[in-house]
Amino acid sequence: MVNETQHTCSASSSSKSDGGSSSGSESSKDSSRCSTPVLDADRHERLREKMRRRQESGDKWFSLEFFPPRTANAAVNLISRFDRMGAGGPLFIDVTWHPAGDPGSDKETSSMIIANTAVNYCGLETILHMTCCNQTKDDITGHLQKAKRLGLKNIMALRGDPVGEEWEEEVDGFNYAVDLVKHIRNEFDDYFDICVAGYPKGHPEAESYEADLRYLKEKVFAGADFIITQLFFRSETFLKFMKDCQAIGITCPIIPGIFPIQGYHSLRQLVKLSKLEVPQEIKDVIEPIKDNDAAIRNFGVEQAVSMCRELLDSGVVHGLHFYTLNREVATTEVLKRLGLWTEDPRRPLPWAVSAHPKRRVEDVRPIFWASRPKSYIYRTQEWDDFPNGRWGNSSSPAFGELKDYYLFYLKSKSPREELLKMWGEELTGEESVFEVFTCYITGEPNKNGHKVTCMPWNDDPLATETNLLKEQLEKVNRRGILTINSQPNINGKPSTDPIVGWGPSGGYVFQKAYLEFFTSSEIVTALLKVLKKYELRVNYHIVNVKGQNITNAPDLQPNAVTWGIFPGREIIQPTVVDPVSFLSWKDEAFALWIEQWAKLYEEESPSRMIIQYIHDNYYLVNLVDNDFPLENCLWQVVDDTFELLN
Amino acid sequence: MVNETQHTCSASSSSKSDGGSSSGSESSKDSSRCSTPVLDADRHERLREKMRRRQESGDKWFSLEFFPPRTANAAVNLISRFDRMGAGGPLFIDVTWHPAGDPGSDKETSSMIIANTAVNYCGLETILHMTCCNQTKDDITGHLQKAKRLGLKNIMALRGDPVGEEWEEEVDGFNYAVDLVKHIRNEFDDYFDICVAGYPKGHPEAESYEADLRYLKEKVFAGADFIITQLFFRSETFLKFMKDCQAIGITCPIIPGIFPIQGYHSLRQLVKLSKLEVPQEIKDVIEPIKDNDAAIRNFGVEQAVSMCRELLDSGVVHGLHFYTLNREVATTEVLKRLGLWTEDPRRPLPWAVSAHPKRRVEDVRPIFWASRPKSYIYRTQEWDDFPNGRWGNSSSPAFGELKDYYLFYLKSKSPREELLKMWGEELTGEESVFEVFTCYITGEPNKNGHKVTCMPWNDDPLATETNLLKEQLEKVNRRGILTINSQPNINGKPSTDPIVGWGPSGGYVFQKAYLEFFTSSEIVTALLKVLKKYELRVNYHIVNVKGQNITNAPDLQPNAVTWGIFPGREIIQPTVVDPVSFLSWKDEAFALWIEQWAKLYEEESPSRMIIQYIHDNYYLVNLVDNDFPLENCLWQVVDDTFELLN
Repeated sequence: MVNETQHTCSASSSSKSDGGSSSGSESSKDSSRCSTPVLDADRHERLREKMRRRQESGDKWFSLEFFPPRTANAAVNLISRFDRMGAGGPLFIDVTWHPAGDPGSDKETSSMIIANTAVNYCGLETILHMTCCNQTKDDITGHLQKAKRLGLKNIMALRGDPVGEEWEEEVDGFNYAVDLVKHIRNEFDDYFDICVAGYPKGHPEAESYEADLRYLKEKVFAGADFIITQLFFRSETFLKFMKDCQAIGITCPIIPGIFPIQGYHSLRQLVKLSKLEVPQEIKDVIEPIKDNDAAIRNFGVEQAVSMCRELLDSGVVHGLHFYTLNREVATTEVLKRLGLWTEDPRRPLPWAVSAHPKRRVEDVRPIFWASRPKSYIYRTQEWDDFPNGRWGNSSSPAFGELKDYYLFYLKSKSPREELLKMWGEELTGEESVFEVFTCYITGEPNKNGHKVTCMPWNDDPLATETNLLKEQLEKVNRRGILTINSQPNINGKPSTDPIVGWGPSGGYVFQKAYLEFFTSSEIVTALLKVLKKYELRVNYHIVNVKGQNITNAPDLQPNAVTWGIFPGREIIQPTVVDPVSFLSWKDEAFALWIEQWAKLYEEESPSRMIIQYIHDNYYLVNLVDNDFPLENCLWQVVDDTFELLN
Repeated sequence: MVNETQHTCSASSSSKSDGGSSSGSESSKDSSRCSTPVLDADRHERLREKMRRRQESGDKWFSLEFFPPRTANAAVNLISRFDRMGAGGPLFIDVTWHPAGDPGSDKETSSMIIANTAVNYCGLETILHMTCCNQTKDDITGHLQKAKRLGLKNIMALRGDPVGEEWEEEVDGFNYAVDLVKHIRNEFDDYFDICVAGYPKGHPEAESYEADLRYLKEKVFAGADFIITQLFFRSETFLKFMKDCQAIGITCPIIPGIFPIQGYHSLRQLVKLSKLEVPQEIKDVIEPIKDNDAAIRNFGVEQAVSMCRELLDSGVVHGLHFYTLNREVATTEVLKRLGLWTEDPRRPLPWAVSAHPKRRVEDVRPIFWASRPKSYIYRTQEWDDFPNGRWGNSSSPAFGELKDYYLFYLKSKSPREELLKMWGEELTGEESVFEVFTCYITGEPNKNGHKVTCMPWNDDPLATETNLLKEQLEKVNRRGILTINSQPNINGKPSTDPIVGWGPSGGYVFQKAYLEFFTSSEIVTALLKVLKKYELRVNYHIVNVKGQNITNAPDLQPNAVTWGIFPGREIIQPTVVDPVSFLSWKDEAFALWIEQWAKLYEEESPSRMIIQYIHDNYYLVNLVDNDFPLENCLWQVVDDTFELLN
């Protein structure tokens, strides 16, 4: 996107002699230039800069608060919720610190790991809460170091609620949030963006409202970048608080904390915890309907919408922070009614980017993990550099192994019983496997009346783009070409195209047709004969679980299969078919047959043996049609193969 | 180009645990992969590998020998000859070592610098001769180190002719070529490919033909990679020699040295020097026509063609080495008649590649130097890394300054008088400058009847591609938009297109329309108003000699203006408009007004002051139309500008 302001700079570039012949005046080039052309600002700015930019552009925003889940299953669900609510475009999410839940540990349910997942796997700007209670200075430093290592860049510095009735001083620890802010600045300089809490009614333990304001000012002057407030029930409460803050010299952003009332009991519990008083006019409405959950939620949405409108209309509020209580419906409803929920179908790249600072420049990935981006991120998390501009430049091509922890992300969102209904309680032969693949493609129910909405290689229903190929895919799956990944060829569609577009507007996107499938060795033999006719047009890789590998790719070079041309930018080629990575993907793709499908059945059962047979004997094949301006020839290749077999 | 042989490899890629989580089996990926996708083999293989590959493919080749010139002007001419004869596709050229001409020095005429020019600026695979005579071991080591530094990779190791009548032993030096071969292998291991001389009739100083063969074997066993022979007059002389070599165990390639007789005197001189005897049948033909140069040359060509045919028909000769005597006609004629002169219009990249090993991966350059590739290579010679895949990744963006030595390459091939005829003995105003530009574009003679075949920014007539824009260019130059660089937009033409194609076959090439010109500040003011309408479509950079710079380029990012999509490869984008480099180019482009044009005239003369005025007051402008699939809008921009001015 072209910068619309015309900037005149008076830079003389005449090279000056300093004895060396490579002298010149362009030494600042590297620092002044972004190396990733897509959505640079979004991927390079820190949170406080994003906030400032949004405020300057008059663009209102929202953020979402979550708490860590209690069980691993709940964590899987929360991650799905991050993905769904992330689609609405929050500026950031934040994850609370649960002292009782071993918050800095490596458990799937710890605050640290949930925040890590949000940043790295869901690509969300994330704030990790951290409290002083029950922790020594060294504990806290350790947590902060870990957070930094995991790619977290923002901390909400809190004192935290006392564990018992009264606050107990921690030996070698901190007793006030301000001490934690100072500590973070001392130990980590300007690395983290720091958020602190503001209390529109004053902190319940503070001597007075005024004294509490002075504490807040101390926290800000110690290095906090912005303030998120405790919940409140009337807009005037917040607006007065904001005015009072400004009056004593607090100039950083102050973000109102919004709590849509979602139920009688959760309200009572929160009120007890926060020592807030619910205004009489709210009590009057709620008490009569306290047993009607839907009515209370409707009221809560109404009340939140009208309060948020007052805040936004005041002109001084630029963003709204929502206490979601890990629930989706009420908050999403409020945001939609406020017009803040902006489900932008446009993608910066064809795949979901990660928000780890190390991955800022990443703009190329192998196509194989297209439906499993979290697995790709996990398996490459130890890389120091990420491919940028060109895959061939990657210096860290080793993929992480398939470990236990990985299986957490690999886990299907659906329970075993549902999977059995979709994929078959009892398989009678390879054909029943073909049928499962076919039903997944067509969206039709299987013979037991169940729709197949996911597959071991794809947790979600068919992508819109793949739908373009539906008819052909159905035909080939029915005959044992079991497709797990595909894309149509595209010869220069606008980058704003709702289905295949990505990247900044004003550009053009391109694709080479791609088809990836499992199939029997009988079909592979025929396919190889047919491929001879297409030698100069189609690149192929054919591999079995033992690693026998047949390819016509020149010198192990990657083949770019998705690329985009944008105004004033270098070419971006975000997806490649990489022969070397394919061998790592092959391990994962074959393992999914066993881990996700075969293990649904009893050992030695016929169903399990059918899947095991496929795993042991089928080949994984990928095909690229290099002639992207012509009609996709891969269907012809497959048709020719079937014809040869007849 | 797809590798047509199907190779099956049994590589298991299952990642093995070694405690680290980035372990895996792909550690060899980097070494097994080329990072530059275009014509990899040609840019990565060493000479002996190229020779082997050509022999295996049955593809006959030739090479060309030159000696260093005596004067700087002769050097300029020789470099042009390298370019012209390089177009015929020699496998390599070689440059002789002239002990009398300070051969290892930095003089424009030294053997070292001529070989350096051939490799770096003409992109030719080059062998530098080196002799033992009059040099100590340390001298020789110094020369070899320098050769390596300059990117030379091949040495022809010779004893050299005695300076006087008899060979004089050098204290601390070498007396035999075999000692030089051993020295190179000792000091530089396998870095250089080494060539040695063979004497089909035996060396004149050798005790016997057999003894000389034994010396040759010694040289080969000491580490020589191939043999080039002394000239001879009968094919059977060479074929017998080759058989004799093989009989005593010499198995490396032996390349016959071909000397097309070009004149009576040069033949006599050479015969005297090499102590060879001219066969009676040749003497019989030549003596009667010794004063008829054309007749002798015709005979020489006939004789060489028929001898070369016999050699090639023998089946044991794969390449022919030509002693050119720095002349073009006879050798070119012989090569054309043999069918070995292969002027392949296909280019690996849109610009001329350099053969320095450091530049092997280079595949992106700014478009500004499109007509001045040697200047670009000179100004970037100190870079350690060259942009590969993406310009933005370049880590050495500082351009070398415009020094004296550079002016040698910057020098026009035409003498002052010719330039004055083309560019005007006397300028009467800016309009007479417009006329020169217009005549250069149209190819029509100027008002004094002289064609304008070069310009300060372009040593050659208009490129074929630019011809596509001729009509429009003529119109705008006439009105003071003085174009120095341009390209049409291309939306996916085959890579084999004779005009705009480049790279491997089977691909598609693309371009964004580009226009670069000098123009007055009056036109710039109008242009800027017009450009507002095209803000999202056209990127511009407008700069004057003082460095005042007006642009709408986002964040100093480069804009890719030429790219290609090839089977089984990553995207290649060899040309960019880079805002930072543009400021270095601007210095060069403005300097050419003064250095090449203004200085043709007397100081204070009106003609000189006109050029000086343009230099001081005009702007250099470049425009890119980002909407490459649509009709080029840059002409409309210029038309709108003129309309606004009217």
